[in-house]
Amino acid sequence: MDPVPGGDSALLDPALICAVDLGGTFTKMALVDAAGGVLAEDRVPTYLSAREVGDDGSGSRDWLAAEMARFVDASLPALPGRAVTGFGVVVPGIVDRGVVVAAANIGWYGMPLAAGLSERLGLPGGVDHDVRASGRAEWQLGAGRGVQNLMFVPLGTGIAAALVVDGRLLRADGYAGELGHIPVPSAGDTRCACGATGCLEIVASAAGVERTFARLTGRTMTTPADKVAGLARSGAPAAVKAFTLAGTALSEALLTALTLLGPEVIVIGGGLSGAADLILPTVEDYLTAHLAFQRRPRLAVAEFGSRAGVVGAALVGRELIAAAR
Amino acid sequence: MDPVPGGDSALLDPALICAVDLGGTFTKMALVDAAGGVLAEDRVPTYLSAREVGDDGSGSRDWLAAEMARFVDASLPALPGRAVTGFGVVVPGIVDRGVVVAAANIGWYGMPLAAGLSERLGLPGGVDHDVRASGRAEWQLGAGRGVQNLMFVPLGTGIAAALVVDGRLLRADGYAGELGHIPVPSAGDTRCACGATGCLEIVASAAGVERTFARLTGRTMTTPADKVAGLARSGAPAAVKAFTLAGTALSEALLTALTLLGPEVIVIGGGLSGAADLILPTVEDYLTAHLAFQRRPRLAVAEFGSRAGVVGAALVGRELIAAAR
Repeated sequence: MDPVPGGDSALLDPALICAVDLGGTFTKMALVDAAGGVLAEDRVPTYLSAREVGDDGSGSRDWLAAEMARFVDASLPALPGRAVTGFGVVVPGIVDRGVVVAAANIGWYGMPLAAGLSERLGLPGGVDHDVRASGRAEWQLGAGRGVQNLMFVPLGTGIAAALVVDGRLLRADGYAGELGHIPVPSAGDTRCACGATGCLEIVASAAGVERTFARLTGRTMTTPADKVAGLARSGAPAAVKAFTLAGTALSEALLTALTLLGPEVIVIGGGLSGAADLILPTVEDYLTAHLAFQRRPRLAVAEFGSRAGVVGAALVGRELIAAAR
Repeated sequence: MDPVPGGDSALLDPALICAVDLGGTFTKMALVDAAGGVLAEDRVPTYLSAREVGDDGSGSRDWLAAEMARFVDASLPALPGRAVTGFGVVVPGIVDRGVVVAAANIGWYGMPLAAGLSERLGLPGGVDHDVRASGRAEWQLGAGRGVQNLMFVPLGTGIAAALVVDGRLLRADGYAGELGHIPVPSAGDTRCACGATGCLEIVASAAGVERTFARLTGRTMTTPADKVAGLARSGAPAAVKAFTLAGTALSEALLTALTLLGPEVIVIGGGLSGAADLILPTVEDYLTAHLAFQRRPRLAVAEFGSRAGVVGAALVGRELIAAAR
């Protein structure tokens, strides 16, 4: 990964952050420099103690601290002159000032994660929501550099958004940004996992594209979204249709969100951003047809890809350490 | 109007702001104290020089400065011990750091209003968007006191919103908050003045209620919204239906907006807030039926009513003067 702005001073800064993107299945770890460069990385299966031994999630926390220590010890010898000065962890859930209020996939409810890791690792650090932190990475170092108003929309298994307005990431106690669960006409009356009907993510997430394709082709086995994308590029009608539906639904949601929030840039990320060539033309056409007085945003594809989480985690850690000084 | 928090120190502060709510038809002026109390007020027809003499709007600016000076001179003698230390003006349009970027109703485009008034009045002061400033009044002194996340939604001739997230009013260079122009299913395919179709304000504004009632009763003359409200309270089916449609459309828009922004309180203002008894029950029922994981906001009716603009203007002026110190 090329170094990005932050410039010479960032390259001379020897301090690294042990950055962690904790998922319900895999945990990604990286040592990240001040410019967002990833100097070492690893991926391990996530240990879900709440599911396996039925505890309060403290087993997962202790496992995570041990994995982070192991990763740092294994990686630093290859990076002479460097030191790890802090950590940043991002999780899929509601986070409030270092405490994981609720992360159902991990089994954490009211877990004081930042304090627990700090104590076990002997390092300062911060914890935040994964999508918000990934959005921070794209905004500060990636595809949305230099603007004050941005929406980062990762299209993965589900859909959420990180919202930047007036140069600040919106939080609202962890409730901001649930773009995947705003109702759009194109999603029809299908019921969403959240309990509501017609949510954006029913048709515009990677899982949504897979569902639409299976429905249109009558298959019972789902075809991975990247395979559906390949079929769409070779002109298979059902695959094209699945992506057109995803793009139209996304357009409907973005039109509403941008009317409320006025972004200069909308950055599309997540697994489905690899199929941006199949989605963004639909969105551009829709905006041309429907924008009235609103500011027209530039549409961009995320630069950090699957690394946005760890790069964002590093920014979270670094900001928290700077604020504590 | 009762004094509101700000407390004893506010009551002892002799400084008053000359606060102006400039509309396309009428201009409201008030002398407002530090607690948001209105100690004098006046209302005059707005002079639209761009329309009448075809100028660049400078005639309206000079007229406004003269009206403000006249109002202050006429009001101060009745307020011994008080002094006017600054001004605040709110306008229906896009405002960026004291400059009215675009206010079509007044005929101002790129008008440096704060600087122009300051020079003519010999006072410091600020200018802001009318809805955002009214929202500030309800948030800091009115129905939304004490929260960090709020939506203020005035239902008038049109609909806009002031959005407070994490204790800050969102701006996005003046583009934030156009709630009236998000599409909702209940508005159908009707074309809006903005050029798009299905916008919230087509059915949920005061003008929208009047349109629906006229359509349902086959009348060519429109009945004022407050008259329609009276008919609805006495059970007239078409009037009830017009308010139910307005309430449902508003619910659809609010569900989307709160899913993105997580407000703790939604304050309904504007002329139609006098019919809150006919609208809010529909919204409460809708939220009960449709909320999943979202935070449920408290619904409140604006406390400042038609004075929210001047009280907000005073806050704008006061904040700007404090920041300049």
